[in-house]
Amino acid sequence: MDQDQLELSSNLARQLRVDSIRCSTSAGSGHPTSSLSAADLMAVLLVGHLRYDWDRPDLPGNDHLIFSKGHASPLLYSMYRAVGVVNADELINTYRRLGARLAGHPTPALPWVDVATGSLGQGLPDAVGIALAGKYLDELDYHSWVLCGDSETAEGSIWKALDKASYYKLGNLTAIVDINRLGQRGPTELQWDLERYAARVQAFGARAIVIDGHDLEAIDAALGQGREGTDQPTVILARTIKAKGVPELEDKNGWHGKALPPDMAERAIKVLGGATDLRISSPSPADGQVEPAIRPDPGAKIDLPVFELGEKVATRVAFGAAIAALAARPEIVVVDGEVGNSTHAEDFGAVCPERYFQMFIAEQQLVASAVGLAVRGYIPFASTFAVFFSRAFDFIRMAGISRANIRLVGSHAGVEIGEDGPSQMALEDLASLRAVFGSVVLYPGDATCTAALTATMADTRGIVYLRTTRGAYPVIYPAGEAFPIGGSKVHHAAPGDQVALIGAGVTLHECLAAAKELGGLGIQARVIDAYSIKPIDRDALVEACMATGSRLVVVEDHYPEGGLGSAVLEALADASVPALNIAHLAVQSLPTSGKPAELLDAAGISSRHIVAAARKLAGQ
Amino acid sequence: MDQDQLELSSNLARQLRVDSIRCSTSAGSGHPTSSLSAADLMAVLLVGHLRYDWDRPDLPGNDHLIFSKGHASPLLYSMYRAVGVVNADELINTYRRLGARLAGHPTPALPWVDVATGSLGQGLPDAVGIALAGKYLDELDYHSWVLCGDSETAEGSIWKALDKASYYKLGNLTAIVDINRLGQRGPTELQWDLERYAARVQAFGARAIVIDGHDLEAIDAALGQGREGTDQPTVILARTIKAKGVPELEDKNGWHGKALPPDMAERAIKVLGGATDLRISSPSPADGQVEPAIRPDPGAKIDLPVFELGEKVATRVAFGAAIAALAARPEIVVVDGEVGNSTHAEDFGAVCPERYFQMFIAEQQLVASAVGLAVRGYIPFASTFAVFFSRAFDFIRMAGISRANIRLVGSHAGVEIGEDGPSQMALEDLASLRAVFGSVVLYPGDATCTAALTATMADTRGIVYLRTTRGAYPVIYPAGEAFPIGGSKVHHAAPGDQVALIGAGVTLHECLAAAKELGGLGIQARVIDAYSIKPIDRDALVEACMATGSRLVVVEDHYPEGGLGSAVLEALADASVPALNIAHLAVQSLPTSGKPAELLDAAGISSRHIVAAARKLAGQ
Repeated sequence: MDQDQLELSSNLARQLRVDSIRCSTSAGSGHPTSSLSAADLMAVLLVGHLRYDWDRPDLPGNDHLIFSKGHASPLLYSMYRAVGVVNADELINTYRRLGARLAGHPTPALPWVDVATGSLGQGLPDAVGIALAGKYLDELDYHSWVLCGDSETAEGSIWKALDKASYYKLGNLTAIVDINRLGQRGPTELQWDLERYAARVQAFGARAIVIDGHDLEAIDAALGQGREGTDQPTVILARTIKAKGVPELEDKNGWHGKALPPDMAERAIKVLGGATDLRISSPSPADGQVEPAIRPDPGAKIDLPVFELGEKVATRVAFGAAIAALAARPEIVVVDGEVGNSTHAEDFGAVCPERYFQMFIAEQQLVASAVGLAVRGYIPFASTFAVFFSRAFDFIRMAGISRANIRLVGSHAGVEIGEDGPSQMALEDLASLRAVFGSVVLYPGDATCTAALTATMADTRGIVYLRTTRGAYPVIYPAGEAFPIGGSKVHHAAPGDQVALIGAGVTLHECLAAAKELGGLGIQARVIDAYSIKPIDRDALVEACMATGSRLVVVEDHYPEGGLGSAVLEALADASVPALNIAHLAVQSLPTSGKPAELLDAAGISSRHIVAAARKLAGQ
Repeated sequence: MDQDQLELSSNLARQLRVDSIRCSTSAGSGHPTSSLSAADLMAVLLVGHLRYDWDRPDLPGNDHLIFSKGHASPLLYSMYRAVGVVNADELINTYRRLGARLAGHPTPALPWVDVATGSLGQGLPDAVGIALAGKYLDELDYHSWVLCGDSETAEGSIWKALDKASYYKLGNLTAIVDINRLGQRGPTELQWDLERYAARVQAFGARAIVIDGHDLEAIDAALGQGREGTDQPTVILARTIKAKGVPELEDKNGWHGKALPPDMAERAIKVLGGATDLRISSPSPADGQVEPAIRPDPGAKIDLPVFELGEKVATRVAFGAAIAALAARPEIVVVDGEVGNSTHAEDFGAVCPERYFQMFIAEQQLVASAVGLAVRGYIPFASTFAVFFSRAFDFIRMAGISRANIRLVGSHAGVEIGEDGPSQMALEDLASLRAVFGSVVLYPGDATCTAALTATMADTRGIVYLRTTRGAYPVIYPAGEAFPIGGSKVHHAAPGDQVALIGAGVTLHECLAAAKELGGLGIQARVIDAYSIKPIDRDALVEACMATGSRLVVVEDHYPEGGLGSAVLEALADASVPALNIAHLAVQSLPTSGKPAELLDAAGISSRHIVAAARKLAGQ
């Protein structure tokens, strides 16, 4: 940057500080002091380094800017004002108000925000996904810049992210750590020990650049180095002062997350030189880099695998075959958590290694990479054992707030996994993932259904979760059968049905066996395959209640709370159906190891138990 | 160790290998190759360093041994056989069988296992909690030894754990990393790059000792250094060979998690010299160190805070006052996630800094520390914002399998938090935490109830979760009122009730306001305060259904799935009550920022909406 630009940056930094104070004081809450510490860093970035066409936020060549420290939203929104996409009125008078897009923490309700942040330690992992897309898929020169707080370096996810950034040689990623020494309730663990920060960063394979975060020339040099062409991600460790620019608050504990009272704000703004109306033009994305190397082809012909009726196929195997077929669509990407040979995600890697990313055993990064890839329009399928998505639950929750389009495939769910024991059983995944905003939860019972749902979920918006099974079970649906989201399959329905058996996945087969046995006992039972657990097929449930006098047996390989049973009940809570008479069979005690069939039986969810429950409901 | 001990170790290592093969081949599954790589490490540990009285696993002075790589259970159980607490019959014929305590991954069903492992990256964080107890509370000389896999170093939680171990100067902790180069589906990220491992370990403040993990003398020296008196935790980085001792499988990919077929097992055992019956005596815990410095005093007099009826008090404030009062019990410990000034956990720290541990922003370590402290019999209260327990969900799940006694207190739950926006709102915590095995979920509506529940939860076994509220609401219960787990409080009940309003926490106040308004409209409504969400007061719900014709309005500050609404429905699924006619008011869309009252209203869970729903149910 030349002297003019440095002077502009200096003036901009002042304006960003003033605006950060103005909007938070007007709102009566927010994090001005955490914004002020990073104002110089962001001013130089905006004036000289962030290549971004603010009128065209969807431009493929735009850089990406993520505030991993999302609480510094006053600073981010003040930057938006400085580039002219948010005006002073919106900034000052809507920030943190009901319905406003300038929320307390950034969300993609704003077109310039890639991902929702505010749960610390997630912005950098998300950016790794974007940088992966940039380097390996888009093949564009955009750079991803991430503003991190120092407190959030206590989250392990930051180190996982750097590790993967280094492993994938993401020189197109720069993290800027605003080391202002003070967390919410007092000093951070490392305070201003920049050397220790640098040692950690280097040990995890990134280039560390230590600077004074208020020295504009040093910032400019560091950001320039960040973009410049090594194969290493860069971490700028910026020593800063919390509340910098407001002398009475600088480096003072007790002011985290507090707006300045109006009188103090007035004094501060005066010291800073008053409100200004600088208008900044960021550098433009370079010409000739606007088209990503990969173009989506949602209409590509997909030859889904076909399975013979009666053939025994594990649904995880069917997923593998289907996702491999989906490789024909260039926008489909698969991310593995070092278990691709078990989940069968590696079947995709075998046919399409260039869109298959290994995240090793780092499930938070697995999900974050998917979120980042989705930012760039890819359709990522992230897969691991169902149970290990619990490790990334906060990331999945935040992906819901981001309205990210990601696909999660969890294999080896339930007691059915057998000998490995309870630590490997997902017995709470349906509950937790149903509760994620905008989620879809699918649990197919056979290979045909799995393949069809795998294809369908590619084009289903939101957080779409597919639960697959370890063991092999008979194919029960013919090729070509349709499995819409929100649908179900009803077996053996007849007007005189005395009871309905509702299962999904592995318990569907138990229900089918039970229905057969019940038939022999003279009890007419229909079976509902609730492959779509969220949304669930309410019409089929209501119809079953009307037919059977609401005598239902709901069977699930999951703990009793929040899973299929709850989904059924929630759907019927306000339905005009006969009084409910539901037997809910679920895993009630802590399972041990054992063979799958033994464990299903010990948990009380095998056909034998279903038959007994149905007989009781039918009064026989 | 002397030459005899080294020779004994060598023979023991052979036996551990043979037994690991025998039990897994007999089971037909398991991880023998991952056991063989660490057999030399564990043999030397057992012969010369692990101070443990195997007949008295509860002895306070015993060392602790945690297999963070829980899949190496064949090795662990073979060690148990070598010290004589498990016999050959149990080892060979029950491993991985239904109901057996020798499960696929270790659980505390075995008295020598402190915590369940099998979800990688958790054993070391748990051990940090044990080591904290040893150094700061028990003041005993026991050492915690953790066997880690190399794959699991990809989990950020490992680095958080080392960081906290270093911060707290836990020289009483040694991690032994079995770097066998091969993960489940192929090479690990760093393979045998021991230098990079060492740089990371050192950067995170631990002492790194690099050794050949099959050199018994080197192992002995490293373990000795591990115990010896620095203030630094030790990480022994042991270069090992997967399947070491079975030439045809050594360092060979494709053999992770596979039992040797019988013929191969036979050959391997022959090469290893056949089955033996060595019986090892571990070193004893030193005399004079058997009594911990802190003795529990469950009967200590607790002066719970008293609140005036009508006074406005936030339940998080009431929690702070109550937990500070509980400091009178020496077994109560509080762990903070750098938000103690918001959760009011710091009120405990103010009166009892010696039992208040800061984990900074590392929620997984927050929960793991609690688990480790509970291993030593302490009653840990871990608290952060409710939403951030989602970051530690897998740890909480595993704590359920460990049957750990931990207390979780989450503040700032629901849209009620206001301006900070959705990233800070816990709108899925009730769903996810209800689904944890053995959990109790509490959500008090006022300060009196909160204080009483805080005291009660101290003595409630399992994973006990308390959800507190940001804002201040009127005290509605007099001091001394009883709030049993599984109970509820029914307000305004009368025989002619037309509708029941069911709320908890913040929505209780909305229900009470609605009932008043409904009364003015001539609609008689009872209100149920469901402060105990799991277990829920089924009797009160059934009675309300009988009184009102099952006309219920259930209102919760949570997404619709899996929370209070589901808890109510699950309780009524098989009850003989009139056909359900339930209005379920929950947060249906993604909230923005706003004022608490505005957000409750916008989400459709304010008294206005409750009144409308109740009128509809009452046909008015």
